[in-house]
Amino acid sequence: MPAPRIVVLAGGVGGAKFVRGLRQHCRTVWPDGQGGTTALITVVVNTGDDLWLAGLRITPDLDSLLYALAGVNDTARGWGRAGESERVSGELTAYGVGWPWFTLGDLDLGTHIARTALLKQGLPLSAVVERLSARWPLGVRLVPATDDEVETHVLVHEDGEARELHFEEWWVRTRAKLAAERFVQAGAESAQPAPAVAPALAAADVVLLAPSNPVVSIGTILGVPGLRDALLATPAPIIGVSPIIGGSAVRGMADACLKAIGVATSADAVGRHYGARSSGGLLDGWLVDRSDAAVVEGLTADGIPSRAVPLWMHDDTASAAIAAEALALAER
Amino acid sequence: MPAPRIVVLAGGVGGAKFVRGLRQHCRTVWPDGQGGTTALITVVVNTGDDLWLAGLRITPDLDSLLYALAGVNDTARGWGRAGESERVSGELTAYGVGWPWFTLGDLDLGTHIARTALLKQGLPLSAVVERLSARWPLGVRLVPATDDEVETHVLVHEDGEARELHFEEWWVRTRAKLAAERFVQAGAESAQPAPAVAPALAAADVVLLAPSNPVVSIGTILGVPGLRDALLATPAPIIGVSPIIGGSAVRGMADACLKAIGVATSADAVGRHYGARSSGGLLDGWLVDRSDAAVVEGLTADGIPSRAVPLWMHDDTASAAIAAEALALAER
Repeated sequence: MPAPRIVVLAGGVGGAKFVRGLRQHCRTVWPDGQGGTTALITVVVNTGDDLWLAGLRITPDLDSLLYALAGVNDTARGWGRAGESERVSGELTAYGVGWPWFTLGDLDLGTHIARTALLKQGLPLSAVVERLSARWPLGVRLVPATDDEVETHVLVHEDGEARELHFEEWWVRTRAKLAAERFVQAGAESAQPAPAVAPALAAADVVLLAPSNPVVSIGTILGVPGLRDALLATPAPIIGVSPIIGGSAVRGMADACLKAIGVATSADAVGRHYGARSSGGLLDGWLVDRSDAAVVEGLTADGIPSRAVPLWMHDDTASAAIAAEALALAER
Repeated sequence: MPAPRIVVLAGGVGGAKFVRGLRQHCRTVWPDGQGGTTALITVVVNTGDDLWLAGLRITPDLDSLLYALAGVNDTARGWGRAGESERVSGELTAYGVGWPWFTLGDLDLGTHIARTALLKQGLPLSAVVERLSARWPLGVRLVPATDDEVETHVLVHEDGEARELHFEEWWVRTRAKLAAERFVQAGAESAQPAPAVAPALAAADVVLLAPSNPVVSIGTILGVPGLRDALLATPAPIIGVSPIIGGSAVRGMADACLKAIGVATSADAVGRHYGARSSGGLLDGWLVDRSDAAVVEGLTADGIPSRAVPLWMHDDTASAAIAAEALALAER
């Protein structure tokens, strides 16, 4: 197989782990002789968590990928920059500006300020991401799902009142404890995929759905008008990796999101939610964890060729093995 | 004398030292029984140095006053916050955003981010300054000369080409070494004084011109359309304090500014530049340093009642003594 053109749809932290593994796998199988790979990896990243806070544009998932791929992420804490401090945040709190429960690290703020300055210069988000990415040899192209401001809002009841919260407020302040009645993509009407998305999908040899949140990461990417159609138009096989292992979300609080859309927290239900491509769904293949091996036969029989492999992304090597399995499933 | 209403026109660092002294003097003479003063001090602050940098609105002189009056300024370095760090700035430089020669400390950036966020909410600069000031018991009301964006630009020749630099670029990057051919107040046409300026001047018992740069601090304040008229309409005496001692600027590079407007760097020339109020100028009184005692007689004879007193602001006590002399001169 020649070096493939791979497109990954991904959310933040889980997506970052998966893409690091994919990059490692590609460097091994299709080396460029300089430590990189001749495989072309394009990651279409969820932008639904993006928000304006304290006058700054913050893009949590893009940053998770940027930092993890640059190797400057905090692996112990699981998010943000390594060696982070919060001196600026302390000042903002003292002035009563921002959300006191939403941590803005100093190094992280450097990214937010740079991003906001470039956006104010009139650059679309895609171009801003390209500029910020150029600081490090990522070996991967990051593309926002859309350049438009489409933000995920969550309809909840709080203290007896119906409220519409920004996703980050629901996720971080309430720890997803208020039942999500519905997710809405505010601003989606007039949005379109970022310019690089459709060409990348059209030229892809394989498309991978990272083990990211099926609702507020992958679901939000697919909710950008035109993006689902662009995905379905790809000649490449689409392989998904389950974010659910043994009936619970590996990271985050995916169950609270799945509940809102009436999908059970299981590898089987999420696979069926994405659906068989042969029946108008997305999947040409589905990877589930070994512990979920029992669902493989039924899913395969229903048109979603599935395989059970170890899905815990303990480290890059484990993630690389998962990426290898996904590519192998695409070959079949 | 009952507790007076005092208005001070001031630039940054020199203005801050003077106002700290004035506040101390008032606390002593007109105490409020709780460590403060019943005197009302309003400081009209130069906004000509303000700029947009990295998408943030920065107001150098207002910040110098805010930090010095709050007691959080770096007295050793002479500007910015005490205990400052530059982690965010390092990130911005790594991303290629901002001016690498313009230091933005982390604590200072907290103020800039908060200010920009409040401006984006639609608050005028006056209201933003009030919000930020509320964090500390300043004992002084800070008012920007104008809520409009009027920025001081400097016409120079650099590498043989005529250029128009922002004042901060000329001041910080070139250290005022490129000869200033002219200063312009970009945006002044449509500007007006901040709403609090004229009422404060109309109600004042005394107006003081701090020993700030006569061209790019006091001169810029007076250049806001309508402000000079509001000043001249005050029934209060106007007393100036010379920023020039023994033929050289006490702080900064005032000589480079004075040269551009054809005024000699001397207490005498600056006094005459402001002019006698009785002849259409500003001054009802002028304080010069002891070392400039020789000019007192001539200035006084020409309608500018002058006095020679120690003008070095070594510490708050020295500054308080100068403020006391200025108020005493106003009484005469």
